[in-house]
Amino acid sequence: MARGRFITFEGGEGCGKSTQTRRLGAALERMGVKSIVTREPGGTPLAESVRRLLKGEGPEEPCDRCELLLFLAARAQLVERVIRPALEAGTWVVSDRFSDSTYAYQGCGRGLPLDFVSAADAFACASLRPDATFLLDLPPEAAAARMRGRESATGVGADRIELAGDAFHARIREGFAELARREPERIITIDASLAPDEVEAAIWSHLKPLL
Amino acid sequence: MARGRFITFEGGEGCGKSTQTRRLGAALERMGVKSIVTREPGGTPLAESVRRLLKGEGPEEPCDRCELLLFLAARAQLVERVIRPALEAGTWVVSDRFSDSTYAYQGCGRGLPLDFVSAADAFACASLRPDATFLLDLPPEAAAARMRGRESATGVGADRIELAGDAFHARIREGFAELARREPERIITIDASLAPDEVEAAIWSHLKPLL
Repeated sequence: MARGRFITFEGGEGCGKSTQTRRLGAALERMGVKSIVTREPGGTPLAESVRRLLKGEGPEEPCDRCELLLFLAARAQLVERVIRPALEAGTWVVSDRFSDSTYAYQGCGRGLPLDFVSAADAFACASLRPDATFLLDLPPEAAAARMRGRESATGVGADRIELAGDAFHARIREGFAELARREPERIITIDASLAPDEVEAAIWSHLKPLL
Repeated sequence: MARGRFITFEGGEGCGKSTQTRRLGAALERMGVKSIVTREPGGTPLAESVRRLLKGEGPEEPCDRCELLLFLAARAQLVERVIRPALEAGTWVVSDRFSDSTYAYQGCGRGLPLDFVSAADAFACASLRPDATFLLDLPPEAAAARMRGRESATGVGADRIELAGDAFHARIREGFAELARREPERIITIDASLAPDEVEAAIWSHLKPLL
């Protein structure tokens, strides 16, 4: 049996990752490709418990080093219990965020040592790498406008990490861009200021060779 | 102001760490030495939430890599929010377990790569090392008898890690012994089969020079 493909979506807040993750999952299903959709942090009962601690719903905010280690703990569990078994069974896995977010947010955003962040991430996911990653890139002003729109539409305010400030989010965007320059074969940057249908079409033009 | 001293207790299950941690805290208080007593994993509200996930009270058991990262996440938070500020304020800190347990349990016990375990622990605690560590060493048979005694006295059964089997606990004991051989200045091995008063006296004979 052929191994399933592992596709991840990355990018800053409000870039449309969750929408495109869902759309890709639905499209694969329509095409009869066995697939699952997941998200980080989360995707297993234990990892979802860790997610609540990270989102600031826990009893106390994590310090930066604790934050990194909690993200990686959730990833280790998700890879071990969900992603790797699915891929080995021939199922495609589509994830809303993965390793690149850790590099961009905890490495470039929080300023934790990048060598350690990369080494610890490789340990957490037992060196599993996505087959393709779509980086949905959005200028900070556009992202902020989308976040305000989401808040007024849903009544759900921004979480702890979303609220971390403009300089933090600028470092994250540059961190993602650096990864895309370093791994152009894996990471495809898409202009996320386009309409969702156009973003979806751009994604498909890159995904077809994998099918 | 003089920095506080950081004292840790280490050892396998049933070796009397918690008793001696409490006794040392009480003795320091009687002597007028400002001190706090803590435990791992735990010691802050967030770290206690992580403890519950590790003890198997969560929705799912962690895989080995997740387990290591959760222990380290809890440690990062405890060091940042409790231990380091206390030491800097001149307060002594006495902890029931610290880094050596991670090396022995997750490294030697679970078989995770020791180099990574050590590097990740150094990151988690920002390279903080105890000033003195008491390794309470107990042969496995004696430890098992004590655990049975505790269970029948308290009605509280063994947790997930305590139940991990004889070979696992033998590897842990050897892991602790290896650390003690490597760092004889810091780690003092005490025969934990002695009566608690005798153990306490042995600890004090080593601690006096630090006061």
